[in-house]
Amino acid sequence: MRLALKLAKRGRTSPNPMVGAVIVKNGEVVGEGYHPCAGEPHAEVFALRDAGDRAKDAVMYVTLEPCCHYGRTPPCTEAVIRAGIRKVYAAMADPDTKVSGKGFDVLRSAGIEVECGLCEREARELNEAYIKHRSTGLPFVILKSAMSLDGKIASRTGDSKWITNERSRAFAHRIRGGVDAIVVGANTARIDNPRLTARLGSKVYYPTRVVITRTGDFPDDLGFLHEPGKAIIAASSCANTESLRKLESAGARIVTLKDHGDQPSIADLMRQLGEMGHLSVLIEGGSEIAAAALEERVVDKLIYFYAPRIIGGKSAVGAVGGIGAENIASSISLERIRLRRFGQDIAVEGYVVYPNSCLF
Amino acid sequence: MRLALKLAKRGRTSPNPMVGAVIVKNGEVVGEGYHPCAGEPHAEVFALRDAGDRAKDAVMYVTLEPCCHYGRTPPCTEAVIRAGIRKVYAAMADPDTKVSGKGFDVLRSAGIEVECGLCEREARELNEAYIKHRSTGLPFVILKSAMSLDGKIASRTGDSKWITNERSRAFAHRIRGGVDAIVVGANTARIDNPRLTARLGSKVYYPTRVVITRTGDFPDDLGFLHEPGKAIIAASSCANTESLRKLESAGARIVTLKDHGDQPSIADLMRQLGEMGHLSVLIEGGSEIAAAALEERVVDKLIYFYAPRIIGGKSAVGAVGGIGAENIASSISLERIRLRRFGQDIAVEGYVVYPNSCLF
Repeated sequence: MRLALKLAKRGRTSPNPMVGAVIVKNGEVVGEGYHPCAGEPHAEVFALRDAGDRAKDAVMYVTLEPCCHYGRTPPCTEAVIRAGIRKVYAAMADPDTKVSGKGFDVLRSAGIEVECGLCEREARELNEAYIKHRSTGLPFVILKSAMSLDGKIASRTGDSKWITNERSRAFAHRIRGGVDAIVVGANTARIDNPRLTARLGSKVYYPTRVVITRTGDFPDDLGFLHEPGKAIIAASSCANTESLRKLESAGARIVTLKDHGDQPSIADLMRQLGEMGHLSVLIEGGSEIAAAALEERVVDKLIYFYAPRIIGGKSAVGAVGGIGAENIASSISLERIRLRRFGQDIAVEGYVVYPNSCLF
Repeated sequence: MRLALKLAKRGRTSPNPMVGAVIVKNGEVVGEGYHPCAGEPHAEVFALRDAGDRAKDAVMYVTLEPCCHYGRTPPCTEAVIRAGIRKVYAAMADPDTKVSGKGFDVLRSAGIEVECGLCEREARELNEAYIKHRSTGLPFVILKSAMSLDGKIASRTGDSKWITNERSRAFAHRIRGGVDAIVVGANTARIDNPRLTARLGSKVYYPTRVVITRTGDFPDDLGFLHEPGKAIIAASSCANTESLRKLESAGARIVTLKDHGDQPSIADLMRQLGEMGHLSVLIEGGSEIAAAALEERVVDKLIYFYAPRIIGGKSAVGAVGGIGAENIASSISLERIRLRRFGQDIAVEGYVVYPNSCLF
C-alpha cells in the first residue's frame, strides 16, 4: 500500500482523485499503476495491464475504492473482475456518492475478497481536496503567507520582496503547482502585479488565477491576464461595470460575488469555484484577504513561511489584518502542525480549527 | 571533552564561567569535576581530588583555560602542576584579561603539554554570557516573546493569558533560571503584575528583577517587590521622585537611566547591570520594550515561542512595536536558527545580526 500511495502522488488528476495501484502475486510485485490525469485510464487499469496474465489470483492494493460507473472510462470493477484478482485491499472508500461503497459491493458480488482501511490516514491526506470537494461541493482551501519571525508580511514602507529565501519560494511554487486555482486580493494584484503561475524547474503550470475586487478598477497592464489558462475577476456586485467589461475583453472571466459586510464574500467565491470543478484553492494574500478568508471560515489548511528576520513596526503590515479574535480562547487553533526547514527559513503547516464562538 | 562540557552544565556559576574537567589515565576516566558556583573550588580542583594519586602523568580535559590568579580560590594552574598532570587539553582560552593565555603559559613553563581548541564552538556557546561580559563589560541579552503564528502577543482586547502551552512555559522558566536578571517594561508590570521568578519544578530561583519605567508610577501591590532577591526600578531621569522614594522604601533599588529619545535607555540599563556583575539578562516584553531593545541593539539572542493559533487583528499587539525597519534589507537578521517543539508549540532561537544601515 505504501508503494501504491507513492505511485498515486505522480498523478496530476484534478478533478479526479490521485490513485495508485499495486498487484502482488506470491509475495512479488507483478503490476504497478497510477492515474496520471483526468481522461486517462485509472490506476487499476494501468496496474492490470502491467501485470498481464499474472493478475490471475493475485492481490491488488489500491489507494481508493475502485469505481463502478461509466465516466470518461469504463468502470474499474469490471476490469478487476475480468482479470481474476482474488483480493482487493483498498485504503479508503470513495467519498463520491456515485461510487461510495458500491464499488466494494460489485467486487464482493463477484466473489472477490475486499478489505478497506489499510493506510487510510495517509490516503485521506493525499486526497484531502478531492474528499472535501466530493463531500461538500467546496474546494479545499490553503492559506499561504510569507513573513518575518515577528509576523510582518511587509515593512512599514510596504517593501516585501523578498522576505523568504529562494528555497522557500521554490517550495511555494510546488504548492501552487498542486492546486487548481490561486486567489489574491486586488491590492496584491495592483501592487505586486503577480503572474500567479507555478514555476517548477523549467516547467510552468497555470492554475486558474483569481483576483477579488470590490471596485473592479485596475491598471491596464495586469500581468496575470496574459498568461495561458483561466483568469477570473471576482467582483463585488457594486463594482464598476465599465471596468469589468474592459477586463472581460482583455480575457478575464467575470464572476459576481455576494457581499459579506461591505466586502465581496470569499465564501461565495469558493462556492462558485467548487461548482466550476476546482478541487483545491490557494489563497495567497494579502493581510486583509487572509483575515476575510479566516473570518468567513473557508480556510482548511495554513502554510506560513518564516524568514529569520525581524521587521518590527506598529504600522508594518501583519500576516492577518481585519478585526481579529476578541481573546485567546476565541482565536483560531491549528492542529497536526508540521515543520519544514528551507535553509534558515521555516515553514509551519497546520489544519485550521475554528472556535465555537464568533471570531474576528 | 564532551563529558567535561556535560559536567560544566551542572554548575550555576555566575559571575564565574561554567567549567567542567575530566582526568584520563591509560584510556580510563579517573577524575571528574565541575565548578558548582562562585566561591566554591573550580572544576580542575574537584577533578584532581576525585583522581587522587591517579592524576600523576594523566591527561586533563578542561572546558576553559585554567586560572592562574588568586581570586576567591587559589590558582588552578598550581594544583594541576602539583598533581603531576602530563598534558592539558583546553577547549578555549579564558577571555578574562586576568587569565587569557597566562594560564597556559604557567602550565607550559612547568613542562606540561598544552593544547587549546578541542570542541571550542560548544565551549564558547556554553559560556557565551561569560565571554561577552568579560570582553565587553556588558551582559549577554536574550529577548523572549510568546506569540501566535501570526506574531500577536495579545488579542485586540489585550488578552494574553495563555497563548502558549504549559510545556513552552516550563521551558521559559528554565531560561529564566539560567539568567542573572529579568527585565520587563512598566506596562507589563502594571498589567500582568508578574513575579519574575523562575519556577523549576518545586524549586524557585530568584534572578534580579528589573522594571523599566519612564514615569515611576505604579499601583501599590507590585508583586515582584515582595519576592526574595534584588528588585530594581530602572527609571528615566524625569520620573516622579516621590513615587520612586515609595518604591525604594518598599524594597526596590532605584537606578536612573539616561534617555534614548523620549524613553529611558535600555542600553544604559545593560551597561549598569553589567557593572553590577550580571553576565546575562532576559528581556521579556512587551512589544515596545522589545522594539526599543532591538533599536538600541542590545539583544544578542532571540527566543520566540509560537502557539498553533491565529489571533489576527490590525490593532492586536505584535511581538515588536516601535517604528520598525524601513525595508527588508534593513531589517534585523537572525543566524544559527534552532527549532524546538513543545507539543504543538514551536520555539525558534537565533542570534541577532544587526544591519549596517539604521534600523527602526
